[in-house]
Amino acid sequence: MVTKHQIKLIKSLTQKKYRQQLGLFAVEGIKGIEEFLNSDFKLQNLYTTQPIFDAPKQLVTDISEAELKKISSLKNPNTALAVFNIPKAKDIDREELIIALDDVRDPGNLGTIIRLCDWYGVKDLVCSANTVDCYNPKVVQATMGSLTRVNITYLNLEEFISATNTDVFGTFMNGENIYKTELPSTGIVVLGNEANGISDSIKVKVDRQLTIPQYGESKNTESLNVANATAIVLSEFRRRLIEK
Amino acid sequence: MVTKHQIKLIKSLTQKKYRQQLGLFAVEGIKGIEEFLNSDFKLQNLYTTQPIFDAPKQLVTDISEAELKKISSLKNPNTALAVFNIPKAKDIDREELIIALDDVRDPGNLGTIIRLCDWYGVKDLVCSANTVDCYNPKVVQATMGSLTRVNITYLNLEEFISATNTDVFGTFMNGENIYKTELPSTGIVVLGNEANGISDSIKVKVDRQLTIPQYGESKNTESLNVANATAIVLSEFRRRLIEK
Repeated sequence: MVTKHQIKLIKSLTQKKYRQQLGLFAVEGIKGIEEFLNSDFKLQNLYTTQPIFDAPKQLVTDISEAELKKISSLKNPNTALAVFNIPKAKDIDREELIIALDDVRDPGNLGTIIRLCDWYGVKDLVCSANTVDCYNPKVVQATMGSLTRVNITYLNLEEFISATNTDVFGTFMNGENIYKTELPSTGIVVLGNEANGISDSIKVKVDRQLTIPQYGESKNTESLNVANATAIVLSEFRRRLIEK
Repeated sequence: MVTKHQIKLIKSLTQKKYRQQLGLFAVEGIKGIEEFLNSDFKLQNLYTTQPIFDAPKQLVTDISEAELKKISSLKNPNTALAVFNIPKAKDIDREELIIALDDVRDPGNLGTIIRLCDWYGVKDLVCSANTVDCYNPKVVQATMGSLTRVNITYLNLEEFISATNTDVFGTFMNGENIYKTELPSTGIVVLGNEANGISDSIKVKVDRQLTIPQYGESKNTESLNVANATAIVLSEFRRRLIEK
């Protein structure tokens, strides 16, 4: 059974303010919860309609389908909801390839960018303070567990870039053709906001402007979606590793 | 002024059934509407709070902000809503690179895939009958006008592939490393459903299974988002063009 107090607490976790106050966030669905249970994340409570999880008994609450509906933020809740502690971000490894997000606002975009980092072995994702929170339920859902394997740090992006002695890359309309240029295995790659791209204060800190060239006759496409641009840029950086 | 009858008609266009019955769909926002006005698409009606569009006067209705809210499917409506005719799909050019979607269900994914086709000069996108409708308002919104430059045909994907004499590519977990293999400038590239990938009946028709390799230690990422996979695959096909 789930108490009124618990329902209120869990529902409050859809808001960033309460996630930060409480240091907690929610994960829904069997696969996602299993990924977090098998990671370093610390379980606080697991509410489930089926006794299928490998979790400490004192943290598990059996609930009904109707109760699950009350606590879920999904249209079609799936079996269980778990509350985990938000971990402290680990130290950033500045000797590796780092992805930096400059005010990415869409939860779906952030979620799929986290999956891309995981796929391409990028350990550190750094985000400007105005980037959407990675513990937002829509982000957690979209990451499909990759959130457990990528170290995400929210920080002042300008200060971070200034304090890090490495190449800084960004995507622009008139930069070097990304297919033809040499790319190193380390550096910071900045991706910008969905509507405005990379902000001026960050742009001046970019050492190398890269461009994904357009093909075909029209060349009218305004821009690529930021997650798709991240996919192509990461693909190009990592492709160089096997060609060496 | 917008009549009750018009409000009912416009609101009905959020449903595929009515879009198909009426042969109409809606576009919202200044930029999107301008792209459609500058294309082959035929305008039916334009409802606007500002007289800023280059459109035949008899098709333009001035409305208030309150009226715009009544007809819009957006949380924050932007200036105008236009109703256009759904055009007949043009003939498919089988001598070019074709993207084929096998039951892609998410409107955001289809929208960004249409943008990718436009960016990379892919003229024909073919979709299985169960792929989300490209005139769904969320798809139209996500395409940012690219819908006017990509020819989209809904068809029986099995029959289309069988009837087309070209290489058929698909992405799988254990295929050829896409970075190392030769890729032609023509062919059909199949991308699968978000949850289930490429269906068995299509899989048997794929001549060349491609794999986007994972990097890093974990290699636990289950899969890439289908739009991101499309981005990487298209990037690889088009990269070969400049290297020749």
